[in-house]
Amino acid sequence: MNANNGEERIVHEVALVLPKRTRKEEEEEEDCVEVLVTELKKRGMVVDRDVGLADEFLKVACLVVPRIRQVAAPLETLESAAAELHIRKPTRLGMDLPFEVQGSEAFIQQPDGSLFSWFERFRCYQHLLYGIVNCYGHDVTLKLDGRELCWAPEESLVRKLESEGVIKQMFPLHDELKRKELLRTWALNWWNFTNQPIDKIYSYFGAKIGVYFSFLGMYTQWLLFPALLGFIVQMVNFGSLQYLVLPSFFVITTLWAALFLQFWKRKNAALLARWQINCLVGPSQGYRFLGMEWSSLPFPKELTKNLGNEKFKEKEPYQRYEWFAYRKRFSNDVFVIISIICFQLPFELAYAHTYEMITSNIIKFVLTAVYLLIIQYLTRLGGKVAVKLINREINESVEYRANSLIYKVFGLYFMQTYIGIFYHVLLHRNFTTLRQVLLLRLIISQVFWTFMDGSLSYLKYSYRKFRARKKKRSEGGPSTGKIQIASRVEKEYLKPTYSASIGVELEDGLFDDSLKLALQFGMIMMFACAFPLAFSLAAVSNIMDIRTTALKLLVTLQRPSPRAAATIGAWLNIWQFLVVMSICTNSALLVCLYDKEGKWKMEPGLAAILILEHVLLLLKFGLSRLVPEEPAWVRANRVKNVTQAQDVYSKQLLRSSSSEFASMVKPEQEQQKED
Amino acid sequence: MNANNGEERIVHEVALVLPKRTRKEEEEEEDCVEVLVTELKKRGMVVDRDVGLADEFLKVACLVVPRIRQVAAPLETLESAAAELHIRKPTRLGMDLPFEVQGSEAFIQQPDGSLFSWFERFRCYQHLLYGIVNCYGHDVTLKLDGRELCWAPEESLVRKLESEGVIKQMFPLHDELKRKELLRTWALNWWNFTNQPIDKIYSYFGAKIGVYFSFLGMYTQWLLFPALLGFIVQMVNFGSLQYLVLPSFFVITTLWAALFLQFWKRKNAALLARWQINCLVGPSQGYRFLGMEWSSLPFPKELTKNLGNEKFKEKEPYQRYEWFAYRKRFSNDVFVIISIICFQLPFELAYAHTYEMITSNIIKFVLTAVYLLIIQYLTRLGGKVAVKLINREINESVEYRANSLIYKVFGLYFMQTYIGIFYHVLLHRNFTTLRQVLLLRLIISQVFWTFMDGSLSYLKYSYRKFRARKKKRSEGGPSTGKIQIASRVEKEYLKPTYSASIGVELEDGLFDDSLKLALQFGMIMMFACAFPLAFSLAAVSNIMDIRTTALKLLVTLQRPSPRAAATIGAWLNIWQFLVVMSICTNSALLVCLYDKEGKWKMEPGLAAILILEHVLLLLKFGLSRLVPEEPAWVRANRVKNVTQAQDVYSKQLLRSSSSEFASMVKPEQEQQKED
Repeated sequence: MNANNGEERIVHEVALVLPKRTRKEEEEEEDCVEVLVTELKKRGMVVDRDVGLADEFLKVACLVVPRIRQVAAPLETLESAAAELHIRKPTRLGMDLPFEVQGSEAFIQQPDGSLFSWFERFRCYQHLLYGIVNCYGHDVTLKLDGRELCWAPEESLVRKLESEGVIKQMFPLHDELKRKELLRTWALNWWNFTNQPIDKIYSYFGAKIGVYFSFLGMYTQWLLFPALLGFIVQMVNFGSLQYLVLPSFFVITTLWAALFLQFWKRKNAALLARWQINCLVGPSQGYRFLGMEWSSLPFPKELTKNLGNEKFKEKEPYQRYEWFAYRKRFSNDVFVIISIICFQLPFELAYAHTYEMITSNIIKFVLTAVYLLIIQYLTRLGGKVAVKLINREINESVEYRANSLIYKVFGLYFMQTYIGIFYHVLLHRNFTTLRQVLLLRLIISQVFWTFMDGSLSYLKYSYRKFRARKKKRSEGGPSTGKIQIASRVEKEYLKPTYSASIGVELEDGLFDDSLKLALQFGMIMMFACAFPLAFSLAAVSNIMDIRTTALKLLVTLQRPSPRAAATIGAWLNIWQFLVVMSICTNSALLVCLYDKEGKWKMEPGLAAILILEHVLLLLKFGLSRLVPEEPAWVRANRVKNVTQAQDVYSKQLLRSSSSEFASMVKPEQEQQKED
Repeated sequence: MNANNGEERIVHEVALVLPKRTRKEEEEEEDCVEVLVTELKKRGMVVDRDVGLADEFLKVACLVVPRIRQVAAPLETLESAAAELHIRKPTRLGMDLPFEVQGSEAFIQQPDGSLFSWFERFRCYQHLLYGIVNCYGHDVTLKLDGRELCWAPEESLVRKLESEGVIKQMFPLHDELKRKELLRTWALNWWNFTNQPIDKIYSYFGAKIGVYFSFLGMYTQWLLFPALLGFIVQMVNFGSLQYLVLPSFFVITTLWAALFLQFWKRKNAALLARWQINCLVGPSQGYRFLGMEWSSLPFPKELTKNLGNEKFKEKEPYQRYEWFAYRKRFSNDVFVIISIICFQLPFELAYAHTYEMITSNIIKFVLTAVYLLIIQYLTRLGGKVAVKLINREINESVEYRANSLIYKVFGLYFMQTYIGIFYHVLLHRNFTTLRQVLLLRLIISQVFWTFMDGSLSYLKYSYRKFRARKKKRSEGGPSTGKIQIASRVEKEYLKPTYSASIGVELEDGLFDDSLKLALQFGMIMMFACAFPLAFSLAAVSNIMDIRTTALKLLVTLQRPSPRAAATIGAWLNIWQFLVVMSICTNSALLVCLYDKEGKWKMEPGLAAILILEHVLLLLKFGLSRLVPEEPAWVRANRVKNVTQAQDVYSKQLLRSSSSEFASMVKPEQEQQKED
């Protein structure tokens, strides 16, 4: 599968999909695909062509693995692309510097020994592919099946071909050798339970997916303790001490959850340190600076120019800008919260109420089916509204926008998942139903999701395969029996991508997987007192989940594009929120459980004050999260300083030139004095 | 007062106190004071001698202020001391580098234009003074009033003289010009209300005091809003809406407090940015790295040696060490909490109960007097125990130890101040008494503290002046009338120091001032619903407080030694805790206020669950603060990397040498491979 020339294995990492043409030999020189291949080769990339059933594929490689050392070595092309992109990498000197070809030995290698991470390589590939411009100085006419295209000077060839519909897709390719290794050591290694080769996952899929699986593994491992405890609580009768069991279980699980989240933060920091990803401000807010250049901060250019002199006048526009952005986000959040409360809450309550009122099982079933259809539509609508709102916000980076989406959409799912259960418990005090509902949801959701994930992907793949075969058949040719898909690239192309169910613009499939996990956590924590066995179910479900998700990523889907973030981002805050919520709901559950005859009365005044107190407590802790701890201009100043400094250093150090430091500093000084 | 030689003003910043001797002319060369002065001058310091009534003073200066530019210029001695100490300073390149004399123009100046901050200068003075060693290679015999001292080779002269009791004290001197300016623009500028020349305070007293006054100013400014509101609530009758007034006031003040603390963090970050103090991990935990060298981290030396290679084995001792330190701190905290609950709580409750039972006013007065005496003793005892406990802990720096002390001692004061009031309110529902108590405490504490501060300092000063005069008289001499103290240095020497009432080893006077402020904040917040006017009283009291504390620092006390920290440290967390507490207490107060007939019943079960819930909520949020977010080895690794890097850079850049970077990196690389 990989071209083995002598002692090297060439790793094709990106594929371009082109339409299959009825090639005419005499036009070959002007044919756009031929031109593209020539240009790619001219720029030092290794290009292999693959003709599939319905399409043609260009496999691009810039990475070579020598047979002897088994450590991937990038070609010069990749290195120079990295230098052109000024990719900031940690050096042996302990700080991130923009990559330079001459000083490449100073940069710290990845855990697997290679120089660039998958995220960096993918950025380079993109840069290389989109960087092919017409440098002949005149229009070049390209031909495609008789059609003529005009490639203007300084125009990007790949972009041109994409806009003309010639390049259908650019997608990352699986590395067959590594994929098989991961399949063996990770996805099919069921007896490892929660252990996973996290470093290998990181170097194959990038930091975001690596962190997710690390989180999933740690969560499942920690879950074993309350799972065992929950099993004991559910099964054993403690006799006269029975009335103490549930409150103790409540206390223990709450402490467990708080500790787990704290230790996860530590683990995340450790992961980042091992992967040599530098975060300036700690793991909880770390992605803010991750791989970000000064220019990608969301401040307008004219603001950043004069920064550095500490005068009050220059701080003001920053502060105004910060508050402007903050106000927009805030009003959006208020809008989302109000619309969830005004539209979704009544709807959910109406459904729960109708369900409780109806006695006929058939009508119940019909009602549930209708309800499920409606919420499908509602969730999609909510996702679209959320994306629209976010596009109007000013967020610092793509990952910030993704987090913003997560908060908004989670609000929706939170209402959808839990409000009905609350209704059943609090108003009707029906614990048997509650347990049934929880059991059903936990098992069904697990089975349903796994089934959906697998079957949907397979159906999509089959359908696309069918279409490709049909196309091939309709083109004629000797249709002898069944047509097989021989090319691996084509198979991968036909596989579905790892995409989110809503908000595809901002998130990928991790959104769905994380959402599922968060909803499960909420389910088991918030109703811990009502159904301690849920922890055991969740543990079993998660152990299965690790492997099925791994299989999904390795087998049924295209290799996902790597993402920049290196934390679980917004999900951490959502988990914290769920822990606080669970304290409140479990208290309510305990009241319901021990006060079955309604003897403990809450007079309206007392109840009002209690509610007030809780709202205030939540507000207090919410506020400390909402308002950023550092003014934007301070942050901007710091980032600029660091960036400036590092630019100077890198030039100084990497080129080993005897610079005139004093002469460089002095004009600056004089300039400041003049100010 | 300052020697004006031509165009320069020499600023004496440190004074040494020596006994006044009956000097014999023939011994002058061997006299230890003469030797000290010679040695000091030999090392480039400007030394002036001042003979007072009872002692002799050496005023040491390394700073010269040219008359023209009015910007302090350090002498070469100071610069070389800074270079020897490797004082890390922010550079124009945006990062902290160890100071080097040749590259001094690259380092960023202080807001007042000078090169070194007061904290840095003081460190240099200490280094210079204690750095005077016997380099003659043989014992030198020093004489003092007939006594003979042996100054061994390589022994520090100042330390020797201190241990022999010759040097009585080394203390920082006021800069008369700047002191008068501050007196004019700050301490006596009453009409400025909360505005203060913070930058000048910073450059005169150092970051810690500057931050404290900035906090005090901002708090007072923000306090004006609830003060006005509280005044309105107290004075205006809202008619039929009266029952809504107190809950709304409660909500508003809570939000106000939460916002205030958040914005304080931002302000602190802004201050640090303006003062060019770099914090690696944000203002809330920032002092952790502030001016700290790698070697000052609390890890044993043998641990830090091998750090950098990311192997699991090397992480383990760190983690073990971290948990060991953590366990010690934790057990200490548990000990403190338990002893406060077991010993202090019953005592305070007993006092409150007795006070409530007694009807005779005279006995009440006697009881209070006895109580006040006992708590004086108890507090001192508590402080001593706390210091002993802390000395057994492993804390990262002096400021960490100080914070540890603050937490422990605040627990004591918290019980002492509030538990009695709670008792009166909750058990006896006596709101008139509560308001009286609050009024008395707020006014009395303000008057009492101001009076105590002023008069105690003055009494101490007078007593020491009296002793000095007496000594002079007893020495004979022409005692014609009253003996005046002419020397400014002697006057300053006789003034008391800015020291804490307990835990003097770890804290200075800021502890008392911050404690007073925190107790006031707790008083007004926790009983906001019972006595809204308290905010107004606190605002007035704080406006006075700014000026009286300023006067105290500038007039009645010695100039305090500068401290490293640049945040309010532990106090911020204590204020956060007080806000959370105030939510709970105000809820209880509202219940008492609106449920005067005890109609709203709390059955034991419900009450237990409510208490459980609150404890858990507190635990949840407490845990997120208790467990550090980053493993120690990650932090250590980072700090080491940064330090290493900066050492390399500074050498590279400051010496502008064309270094052989590749040859420096390669051996390291090979070494790693061998590992």
